[in-house]
Amino acid sequence: MQNSILNFNDYKNYLIKIADLNGAAALLQWDQETYMPLKSANTRAQQLATLSETAHIWATDKDWVTGLKNLAAQHTLEVWEKQNVYVTLQELERKLKLTPPFVANLSRASSMAFNAWQEAKQQNNFGLFQKELENLVNLKIEEAHLIGFDDHPYNALLDEYDPGSTTKDLDNLFKNLLPELQLLVNQLSKKEVSNDFLHLHYPKDQQWNYTLQLLKSIGFNFDKGRQDISSHPFSINFSSEDVRITTRIDEQDFSNATWSCLHEAGHALYEQGLAIEYYGLPVSTYSTLSIHESQSRFWENCIGRSSAFWNYHYKDLQEKFPKQLGNTDLDKFILAINKVTPSFIRTEADELTYHFHVYIRYEIEKELLNKQLQVKDIPERWNELYEKYLGIKVPNLSEGCLQDVHWSHGSFGYFPTYSLGSLAAAQLWNTIQRKHANVVQEIEHGNYANIHSWMKENIYNKGRLYYTNDLLLNATNEPLNTKYFIAYIKNKFEIQ
Amino acid sequence: MQNSILNFNDYKNYLIKIADLNGAAALLQWDQETYMPLKSANTRAQQLATLSETAHIWATDKDWVTGLKNLAAQHTLEVWEKQNVYVTLQELERKLKLTPPFVANLSRASSMAFNAWQEAKQQNNFGLFQKELENLVNLKIEEAHLIGFDDHPYNALLDEYDPGSTTKDLDNLFKNLLPELQLLVNQLSKKEVSNDFLHLHYPKDQQWNYTLQLLKSIGFNFDKGRQDISSHPFSINFSSEDVRITTRIDEQDFSNATWSCLHEAGHALYEQGLAIEYYGLPVSTYSTLSIHESQSRFWENCIGRSSAFWNYHYKDLQEKFPKQLGNTDLDKFILAINKVTPSFIRTEADELTYHFHVYIRYEIEKELLNKQLQVKDIPERWNELYEKYLGIKVPNLSEGCLQDVHWSHGSFGYFPTYSLGSLAAAQLWNTIQRKHANVVQEIEHGNYANIHSWMKENIYNKGRLYYTNDLLLNATNEPLNTKYFIAYIKNKFEIQ
Repeated sequence: MQNSILNFNDYKNYLIKIADLNGAAALLQWDQETYMPLKSANTRAQQLATLSETAHIWATDKDWVTGLKNLAAQHTLEVWEKQNVYVTLQELERKLKLTPPFVANLSRASSMAFNAWQEAKQQNNFGLFQKELENLVNLKIEEAHLIGFDDHPYNALLDEYDPGSTTKDLDNLFKNLLPELQLLVNQLSKKEVSNDFLHLHYPKDQQWNYTLQLLKSIGFNFDKGRQDISSHPFSINFSSEDVRITTRIDEQDFSNATWSCLHEAGHALYEQGLAIEYYGLPVSTYSTLSIHESQSRFWENCIGRSSAFWNYHYKDLQEKFPKQLGNTDLDKFILAINKVTPSFIRTEADELTYHFHVYIRYEIEKELLNKQLQVKDIPERWNELYEKYLGIKVPNLSEGCLQDVHWSHGSFGYFPTYSLGSLAAAQLWNTIQRKHANVVQEIEHGNYANIHSWMKENIYNKGRLYYTNDLLLNATNEPLNTKYFIAYIKNKFEIQ
Repeated sequence: MQNSILNFNDYKNYLIKIADLNGAAALLQWDQETYMPLKSANTRAQQLATLSETAHIWATDKDWVTGLKNLAAQHTLEVWEKQNVYVTLQELERKLKLTPPFVANLSRASSMAFNAWQEAKQQNNFGLFQKELENLVNLKIEEAHLIGFDDHPYNALLDEYDPGSTTKDLDNLFKNLLPELQLLVNQLSKKEVSNDFLHLHYPKDQQWNYTLQLLKSIGFNFDKGRQDISSHPFSINFSSEDVRITTRIDEQDFSNATWSCLHEAGHALYEQGLAIEYYGLPVSTYSTLSIHESQSRFWENCIGRSSAFWNYHYKDLQEKFPKQLGNTDLDKFILAINKVTPSFIRTEADELTYHFHVYIRYEIEKELLNKQLQVKDIPERWNELYEKYLGIKVPNLSEGCLQDVHWSHGSFGYFPTYSLGSLAAAQLWNTIQRKHANVVQEIEHGNYANIHSWMKENIYNKGRLYYTNDLLLNATNEPLNTKYFIAYIKNKFEIQ
């Protein structure tokens, strides 16, 4: 690597090489969760660790850091160039606090934990995952202390996914959100809504083809991406020209693949919309995970569970699945796909109870991070919180604390971005409707052009030059808050 | 990277990191030829270039080279440790002659050329490939001059695939081989052999399943590997715990997938047989491409086209494809799959005419390398040579000079290893039969245990500590020669 940064072009070329390495690592991860043979977990973990360690070494190289600081001080830079350099410098501060061996350890530990989690989930046996998870939690506590924090170690981890967010902010948002949601859940879950027809037999191949059709219809570009099968749906990218999503198909549950596909597609549209000409630069990188999640929740829920959307798509869907849906009219279908009821699986939860799933994970993570809770006690604590907030008894570990992949990746601090993203989605959706008065009618005609162009201008094109609150302030004139989400829900369920 | 090598363990750890990077690059290549979306060719090329360049920088790092030389001089090393260090040093000499930017350029140029070749082949238009290929040929000429050579620039490139081999050796082997083969081809291609039944309709799914069954039966380990579809079959590995092969299926040609699968399986068994505990070290790396090819040709031909093999498998095959093969007895089947006749496609050629395909490519490559031939004149020269050696008129470019992927990868000097490998396979097979008198009867019972253990002991376990001739000398008591191949062919066709 040529480490001496003299001008913006050197800076750009250096970031491209780091992006190349991160892109390669992402492909190794994608492969690990889709096609990798069983017995190669150890060497794959080793390979990923080397790539992470190298990317880290490059990103924190002394000459590079010096060059970067000199570049930031140059008066010849244009404003947008300065903004890029500024963000790179800011993120560097975090990286400089972690040593390359620590980064490699963490990468290796999470590859190993991922494989242990898969096994544990399949066998419904927390013991198979416990040791690897303890190892990871200890590393994350170490990370929090290396990074440094005010108030709570959790803040150091949150910062990776949503820079600037704190437990104080989150506690506040949840305090505003949950009691109001609780009332709505109590009211709405009493309604008799039948969704049995979503649980008839929907053949795998037909579902797969239908997800591909949905992806095309909302603008996913298959020349710059693909969909595959994995045990936990995810989206990943190696550049904005290669954005991949995965789905899983449950033949007894039509909802599973359909809305997880729309969800991942939201992530993918964002990544495909980033400017390839600035590959590697902050302006060509997603803002925060909360903003990323705002895109997925937007397409999954604001669009994908709306009457307008299915007004356009439902007739065709009925024709594709006449036995399963032939006798169900659009209104019944819309009610069913928006049915509110406490349940065990986060990714299958309705838009309201969803936030309790997130909050429970957030609570457990905070407790793990400040050592109030031991890893071995997670299952008990999990079940206790599900009973407290959702009033349900968790039947087994696979539908309980082993359901999500995140902890096996060491992604502590990640879950809250799901709630933040949902709130942001409603906030963006409110603005779009105000800017484009006919947008709902356009959706009724399968036309998403105004949505795409608004997102492009206000979200995609800003890249990582702004984090959650500043980006929302620019796009919607307000920082992130709960009121648009509550209004969106009340409007959907016609509650005054 | 920690570059100061103090002892064998440091050396090993350093090589592991290089292997990690090369393994990652290999996964990017695999993906490029199997699942990568169309429009991401440019960034993928860029990412591969960065990985190659980095692996090259590490492998040629000054401190590492100094440490390696010091280590080689240490008296405390065990013999096998010394052998590993010696091979690493020897291969380093080649690498030190190429600069990192040259390596990155070459990588980028071959990724681009690969995509151009795919397009050109599909559209039967050499013009779409010409510019990229000219670029690559010029880079390979430059490489030959950077490496240095005696006699012919081609020697510098050959050395990458079969260290020690020269055009003089090859010219000699072909001079011994081709006239004798020519007589045999003339004699055997006159025989009336029907193979029409191999060209009936063989449904894709059924063929796919059959290749999986064959792979299992000869010992391919699916826990440490997989098979996928690609336009040109290949084998690749990211460690001996993750060895992948690809195949293509032609519904009108049963031979295509079946024997290319056995061929790639031979490569894969070799890679899966290398010792994972020495991952990254020469002892855990394949010897030469000629030896690699000896393994693929061994399983494809010596085993896969033998009466003994099909004696065991044919009844089941008939049951799987009763409409296509129900009326064909084993003898007819064996004759058909060994039919000798000049043809256009190398990978589908019989074992005899195969060597003419290789020789033609070898001639063209030599002419390109010493600038006797220009890239734009390849199609004409190709067709001329096919008429001269095989007496056939090439009908189009896709079945002519655009058929093989190799040149698009910049792999000049690679093709001769196909002939060397075929000769070596027959030589190994002769030794195995002498050591294990009952091996043919064992094959008739689907039992390959003695073959696997002989290969493990004499080929796999030697890794890269010996190159072609020394390895064969150890394993068969003779350096590579043509007589066992000629004897093998005469024996197969019962010619005195």
